[in-house]
Amino acid sequence: MINVGVVGGTGYTGVELLRLLAGHPAARARVITSRSEAGTPVADLFPNLRGRVDLVFTEPDAASLAECDLVFFATPNGTAMGLVPQLLEAGVRVIDLAADFRLRNPALWEQWYGMPHACPELLAEAVYGLPEMNRDAVREARLVANPGCYPTAVTLGFLPLVEGGLVDAGSLIADAKSGASGAGRGAKVASLFCEVDGSFKAYGVAGHRHLPEIRQQLEVATRGTVGLTFIPHLVPMVRGIHATLYARLSDGSVDLQTVFEQRFASEPFVDVMPPGAQPETRSVRGANHCRIAVHRPQGEGTVVVLAVIDNLVKGAAGQAIQNMNVMFGLEETAGLDQVALLP
Amino acid sequence: MINVGVVGGTGYTGVELLRLLAGHPAARARVITSRSEAGTPVADLFPNLRGRVDLVFTEPDAASLAECDLVFFATPNGTAMGLVPQLLEAGVRVIDLAADFRLRNPALWEQWYGMPHACPELLAEAVYGLPEMNRDAVREARLVANPGCYPTAVTLGFLPLVEGGLVDAGSLIADAKSGASGAGRGAKVASLFCEVDGSFKAYGVAGHRHLPEIRQQLEVATRGTVGLTFIPHLVPMVRGIHATLYARLSDGSVDLQTVFEQRFASEPFVDVMPPGAQPETRSVRGANHCRIAVHRPQGEGTVVVLAVIDNLVKGAAGQAIQNMNVMFGLEETAGLDQVALLP
Amino acid sequence: MINVGVVGGTGYTGVELLRLLAGHPAARARVITSRSEAGTPVADLFPNLRGRVDLVFTEPDAASLAECDLVFFATPNGTAMGLVPQLLEAGVRVIDLAADFRLRNPALWEQWYGMPHACPELLAEAVYGLPEMNRDAVREARLVANPGCYPTAVTLGFLPLVEGGLVDAGSLIADAKSGASGAGRGAKVASLFCEVDGSFKAYGVAGHRHLPEIRQQLEVATRGTVGLTFIPHLVPMVRGIHATLYARLSDGSVDLQTVFEQRFASEPFVDVMPPGAQPETRSVRGANHCRIAVHRPQGEGTVVVLAVIDNLVKGAAGQAIQNMNVMFGLEETAGLDQVALLP
Amino acid sequence: MINVGVVGGTGYTGVELLRLLAGHPAARARVITSRSEAGTPVADLFPNLRGRVDLVFTEPDAASLAECDLVFFATPNGTAMGLVPQLLEAGVRVIDLAADFRLRNPALWEQWYGMPHACPELLAEAVYGLPEMNRDAVREARLVANPGCYPTAVTLGFLPLVEGGLVDAGSLIADAKSGASGAGRGAKVASLFCEVDGSFKAYGVAGHRHLPEIRQQLEVATRGTVGLTFIPHLVPMVRGIHATLYARLSDGSVDLQTVFEQRFASEPFVDVMPPGAQPETRSVRGANHCRIAVHRPQGEGTVVVLAVIDNLVKGAAGQAIQNMNVMFGLEETAGLDQVALLP
Repeated sequence: MINVGVVGGTGYTGVELLRLLAGHPAARARVITSRSEAGTPVADLFPNLRGRVDLVFTEPDAASLAECDLVFFATPNGTAMGLVPQLLEAGVRVIDLAADFRLRNPALWEQWYGMPHACPELLAEAVYGLPEMNRDAVREARLVANPGCYPTAVTLGFLPLVEGGLVDAGSLIADAKSGASGAGRGAKVASLFCEVDGSFKAYGVAGHRHLPEIRQQLEVATRGTVGLTFIPHLVPMVRGIHATLYARLSDGSVDLQTVFEQRFASEPFVDVMPPGAQPETRSVRGANHCRIAVHRPQGEGTVVVLAVIDNLVKGAAGQAIQNMNVMFGLEETAGLDQVALLP
Repeated sequence: MINVGVVGGTGYTGVELLRLLAGHPAARARVITSRSEAGTPVADLFPNLRGRVDLVFTEPDAASLAECDLVFFATPNGTAMGLVPQLLEAGVRVIDLAADFRLRNPALWEQWYGMPHACPELLAEAVYGLPEMNRDAVREARLVANPGCYPTAVTLGFLPLVEGGLVDAGSLIADAKSGASGAGRGAKVASLFCEVDGSFKAYGVAGHRHLPEIRQQLEVATRGTVGLTFIPHLVPMVRGIHATLYARLSDGSVDLQTVFEQRFASEPFVDVMPPGAQPETRSVRGANHCRIAVHRPQGEGTVVVLAVIDNLVKGAAGQAIQNMNVMFGLEETAGLDQVALLP
Repeated sequence: MINVGVVGGTGYTGVELLRLLAGHPAARARVITSRSEAGTPVADLFPNLRGRVDLVFTEPDAASLAECDLVFFATPNGTAMGLVPQLLEAGVRVIDLAADFRLRNPALWEQWYGMPHACPELLAEAVYGLPEMNRDAVREARLVANPGCYPTAVTLGFLPLVEGGLVDAGSLIADAKSGASGAGRGAKVASLFCEVDGSFKAYGVAGHRHLPEIRQQLEVATRGTVGLTFIPHLVPMVRGIHATLYARLSDGSVDLQTVFEQRFASEPFVDVMPPGAQPETRSVRGANHCRIAVHRPQGEGTVVVLAVIDNLVKGAAGQAIQNMNVMFGLEETAGLDQVALLP
Repeated sequence: MINVGVVGGTGYTGVELLRLLAGHPAARARVITSRSEAGTPVADLFPNLRGRVDLVFTEPDAASLAECDLVFFATPNGTAMGLVPQLLEAGVRVIDLAADFRLRNPALWEQWYGMPHACPELLAEAVYGLPEMNRDAVREARLVANPGCYPTAVTLGFLPLVEGGLVDAGSLIADAKSGASGAGRGAKVASLFCEVDGSFKAYGVAGHRHLPEIRQQLEVATRGTVGLTFIPHLVPMVRGIHATLYARLSDGSVDLQTVFEQRFASEPFVDVMPPGAQPETRSVRGANHCRIAVHRPQGEGTVVVLAVIDNLVKGAAGQAIQNMNVMFGLEETAGLDQVALLP
């Protein structure tokens, strides 16, 4: 049994980690911390866990975390970097679900996150935890930066195209849509039911923090510079990301369906759908899958990729468990066999 | 392995049965029938099952169903009764998720369902599959009538009160609210997104078919006649039933919390919440639990019970699996350990 | 033109007042105050008002308010009572949309609102602004207490029954359901989209502040004591209240449909629907109507009344405009001819 | 008073026309037809109209329609073309809200709508009723083809860019999102609440009927050929379209904000929002406005336009009323002064 700690377990990512860990055959949550809820039973805050999780939130405490084999950080950006160095030193492996270790360039990080980085020396070591790109590195990693939700969907969708040099990487467009849980469980007016329900809008048009992250990964894949317009939107639903990706084909004769199928043939969590398919976000609700369809509308020179994930699962907690499985030599799908809830 | 057949698998109850069976350790779906979709892979209709269910819908066929150990009927009311007698004769056990075998009185059935019953002689044999009332009878049953969604929530909520004679059984009120999946997957204007979203209404006020079913079960529990006003409402959400139950206390000195806790102490799927709790339907979304809280507002003579279930799980497919587990001597919770999806 | 001031215009009641005033033929908003948003154009906060309202939020200021003919308070409970006495003294008439002046008994007010009342001497003068009960008093009032949203729906629904002594007033039950806008625009976790969407729950079961308000009005109507169980619920929708009311009939021979039709025959905003109707909340979305249907399910001794309003219109801003119209001798329907938005 | 007929009034466009006509100062609905609902009072089907519309649905009948000054067709595609010629001959002016007269090229129409056109000779005469492009022609028209919902939002958003030759018209991208009311009130499984709620998907990726319509109008505007990738998506909300438009700038030095403001300076229903704005669909819910914002993310060569409308108002019934106002010499905004409902 892998003993797991969760730092910052009061958000949606935290409760989702606990849901998935509750059914995991080889890992168990031993410590869950929250400054604001210390002393509260987890199941009081999240009644879906009644009878399944009997942990109590505790104050974050390096000593008790150091007794874990693995610590997940489900904290706001900028928190993990304060605690990670001493955990690593204590021999604990770490998966950070926030953004602290996602960008390799400290200056870029500081520009987009608006604060100095506490341990820039770890950025080179941290492995970007997208198993479909970095499985081998994840296996050996002490520190995994779990990808953002948008970057997971957008990167997986573009990957076969940019790796193969099949499109003009200088003018990519990612029109992405997310359910409201992506904004977290913080008490903000913009996240109120009455602000979100029955309406649709773009946000972060001038520049969203996931832009440099996506660009970084696509540049790794394409081994060159990438031009990307990334426009996120808020959908009045709880879970799900839908990325609609546009690129200009360099070579119109390629069989795109085959390219996608071959690229992901051995991936347990990427489902390339049949030609003509239009995936719905609910087809992955609660599940760790990314479903992808590739189109060439009207046979013209623009390729359109549709990719869906559950932002809290493949876009956060599920991918973190997947990374844990890889790190600890378990079956990669262990504890991740949930069938999506439909309807 | 129990070999299972599903008749009528294109509705929401059908896909939910398949979701739960996909994770069941000791049962597997072998046949799934649908007249309208014969020849279609199940996963084409329900993409959440891609990679997990490779069955193809077939024409209903008594011969292939007769090879199953158990057949679930997830058909419209009035269908199962045409096929059940020959299946029973062939030694197949049956769980009907529709209403064909729920009422013991054939005249009452015909009055509320508007058609003659095809095999009234089976009504006396059929066991009403609410394990919390009838576990022993379910164990031996050839034919189980799986309870309706409202009746499950309302009966469980009233049970400790009427069994104990603690309330005036002549003036019970059940104000019940259901998500839209209770109306099924049929193409009806009243079930359209634009008819349901952003609005709330009562329906079936003059008399809903679940009224005689609830009354029958409460009369079994109370061993007397029951007066019940039952008003269902439609909530703009997909899953969930919330029953708000009102009764006049006969004896104001009883400790209601203890009564409820003791009644359900050994029930794996009934969660009596702590005093003051107000259960949310999402706390059971996708799970087979019924969560119940009992209140006595302002200390007056009216007891108020709040009970929530997922209408597609404890109110349909999950309870059917629970009945199957009991019938086949399995652990009652086998395949039913899903944690509710929250948020 | 009536010059109107609005104190506390950043909530949902405030923006709704401005929407209705924008189309009013005989009144115009002149001042709108908000401590937190002073200096912000109203249309920046509420873009639906772009091009229609060019006011800027200002600091609350008794002097500028005193130049208005009428001031609406759309503030949290406990704010209006601090400013109302000096406005009345300055000859300004006041409609308070909060609870400060709704209960006539100061001790009761202090018990339920948890603070001392700043001007208990005004409670006797304040008129409870339900025109269907108090039209004549509203006409002359300096100070109108605009009713709560639940009290409007519940009181109107019970009114014909209790005024006529047709039911046992000692055991009334009001099972009420509200959209999320009733909780206001405050940044609270419980009001987040991801907490409300796709779920249903009861709240305030032990005792909601609208309970004494409803009981007070029903006791006025019945000229006796009233026993009431009031259970509010949260519906995952933005607008609308649906009250399902239960009472034991004293006299089973009364033609309830006629009683309701006669009681409200001359009311412009109460629509008694035909027998068998089951009103939807969306049929009044954005409109000032209360639609009511009366039922006697299964012909038994319990009468069931269904009443729907838009909590922000007839339950708040619309009723306030209606009261203004009455106070200033305008056509009662002036500015309130919106047709509900459906779908 | 303009006497108006509505053919096919049982859909969402029909009820919206009636809502708007109920408040119109110079037009009144005199006839409303529906084969399926003949004999039913309109207010029985649409209870929001109770007390405001006392019409009864009648069988479609050329004689009674011929007594109207104007007839709106709110029918499925292919219906209007059967009746329009005789109405025009009778001197009645016609606004078709369906697609029968939107494409000037009969062959293109037949290709996309899959049936022969009944009166192709009228296609050249029909005026495409986007007042912002064709106001003068609308004024004189006998027959107006009311634009589709997507085409309204997409065309208005691209208009300043393509008229001015500011972008590469050969590689336009329109990523559009619509609420479910765009699919109409027909009883289809895909439109059920339980199919739409909580999920997001693209549809019509291979080719949506609004593609040739948009391309036709942009080609008029640009006086050349246009290359357009148009991907529509379904949003789990009732009303609203959000178009996110992408184009490559030809000339990076243009002040896009000014271009947009000048183009629409005298348009009563196009609101160019301030720099940085990100319009929400709810800011136009129930109103006839199109709100537009223009962005150049990260200062790069891609311009991003955000345009929102209410698909049932500016995208259908409201624009039809606007066209009527223009045709009959009324104030263009008559009857269209609704403030959007927010929240």
